[in-house]
Amino acid sequence: MDDRDFIQSIERGFAVLLAFDEERVNPNLAELAAATGLSRPAVRRILLTLQRLGYVRNDGSRWSLTPRVLSIGQHYSASNAMIETAHPHLLELSAKTGESASLGALDRRDAVYVARVPVRRIMSINVSIGTRIPAFATSMGRVLLAWAPDAVVEDVIAGGMPALTKHTVTDPGELRDVLRDVRSDGWSIVAEELEIGLLSVSAPVRDRSGEVVAALASSTSVGRSSVEAIRSDVVPLLVETADRISADLGHRH
Amino acid sequence: MDDRDFIQSIERGFAVLLAFDEERVNPNLAELAAATGLSRPAVRRILLTLQRLGYVRNDGSRWSLTPRVLSIGQHYSASNAMIETAHPHLLELSAKTGESASLGALDRRDAVYVARVPVRRIMSINVSIGTRIPAFATSMGRVLLAWAPDAVVEDVIAGGMPALTKHTVTDPGELRDVLRDVRSDGWSIVAEELEIGLLSVSAPVRDRSGEVVAALASSTSVGRSSVEAIRSDVVPLLVETADRISADLGHRH
Repeated sequence: MDDRDFIQSIERGFAVLLAFDEERVNPNLAELAAATGLSRPAVRRILLTLQRLGYVRNDGSRWSLTPRVLSIGQHYSASNAMIETAHPHLLELSAKTGESASLGALDRRDAVYVARVPVRRIMSINVSIGTRIPAFATSMGRVLLAWAPDAVVEDVIAGGMPALTKHTVTDPGELRDVLRDVRSDGWSIVAEELEIGLLSVSAPVRDRSGEVVAALASSTSVGRSSVEAIRSDVVPLLVETADRISADLGHRH
Repeated sequence: MDDRDFIQSIERGFAVLLAFDEERVNPNLAELAAATGLSRPAVRRILLTLQRLGYVRNDGSRWSLTPRVLSIGQHYSASNAMIETAHPHLLELSAKTGESASLGALDRRDAVYVARVPVRRIMSINVSIGTRIPAFATSMGRVLLAWAPDAVVEDVIAGGMPALTKHTVTDPGELRDVLRDVRSDGWSIVAEELEIGLLSVSAPVRDRSGEVVAALASSTSVGRSSVEAIRSDVVPLLVETADRISADLGHRH
């Protein structure tokens, strides 16, 4: 695009909204300025605009997000037929496995949770819709990358492959080999590469054109399962469920 | 605020994002211009900006949202301790009732779903996080309004109380009476006022200061339950669960 077409105040508006996070739940002007790198007067004008639009509110010198910010993601979910189609299958998968079931899509170098059915546990996996996890070290990400164009994979590699645990695959050549295996197996199991104790398995969901548009995932922990048990018990169920979602989306083998 | 502080391009950026919905999943430039009332060149610049920021993508002349838009709502959920606190209680309530459990917050004239545990049913209640429902005709909304300042209630009334079904309370005086009852009962049951066949019940969740910050809700349908059964079986459980969430948020009776 032509740089003259870029509207910087939109970029800045999102930067201020996204500066509200776990670390800055009720930030003040100075904290938001520091987090975004914008000047205090610029942040102040953006906050007043966002307040008038109903996305933030203030309480003395402190600011917080309002539930109105959920509207934007809700439009994604509502306008995405895949999510509605997949939902009953996620509920069924979760009921059969006794584990949370999730659907993820690729956004640049991350897998993003776009739908999820949680289960009740003392130690639950603390993610919600919109949570982002690095594609290179997760089963959802590897499924999404396995069928992605090479340029997407190379961009993920260029983004860095830090050792998130001692088990993380950090070598680009090894990742490419793993992705080739995922393509030939039709699923991906990742054990403790994102977090110690965490096991996850994913299979591809395809649309009418045959393109892989999402990854269906089931996650568990080392105490409750093992790579062997996942391979024998969960993989067939997961692949079958992913295929049923694909069929509902119009994909024919 | 001073009008000179208002940044119109931020408002327009959100207007374009929110124009993607169930009716406009893959809109083109002309459709987005019609939906927002903006000129095509203005919409084009906004789309190019949103595309560079990663929130929309285009496929020929058609545009769609990317999963990146979920980030904004995810920051609300992650920065909102209430949602994390409430989640295990929602799972427990849903397990005990066999029905979906939801948490809602007030946003102007609407109740907004901020957390939700769905259940598997053929006829499921089709809402997701971020879904908005009119406060005046729903149990979540009435709980939120019952303890809200009068000005908030009057603004809801000023917004109109259309008959959504033949059972909807459409008279402002009657709504004020209903809200007084909700305050004295400590819960609200709404039967078929939003949609024929839909029954819902809500109870207030309070924060440390005693302020009602959310409504805990359980919904069912006429075929599965009745107002009498909800009153005798669900209300005690719901109120107890809402009180436990309030206690976890630091509220002391």
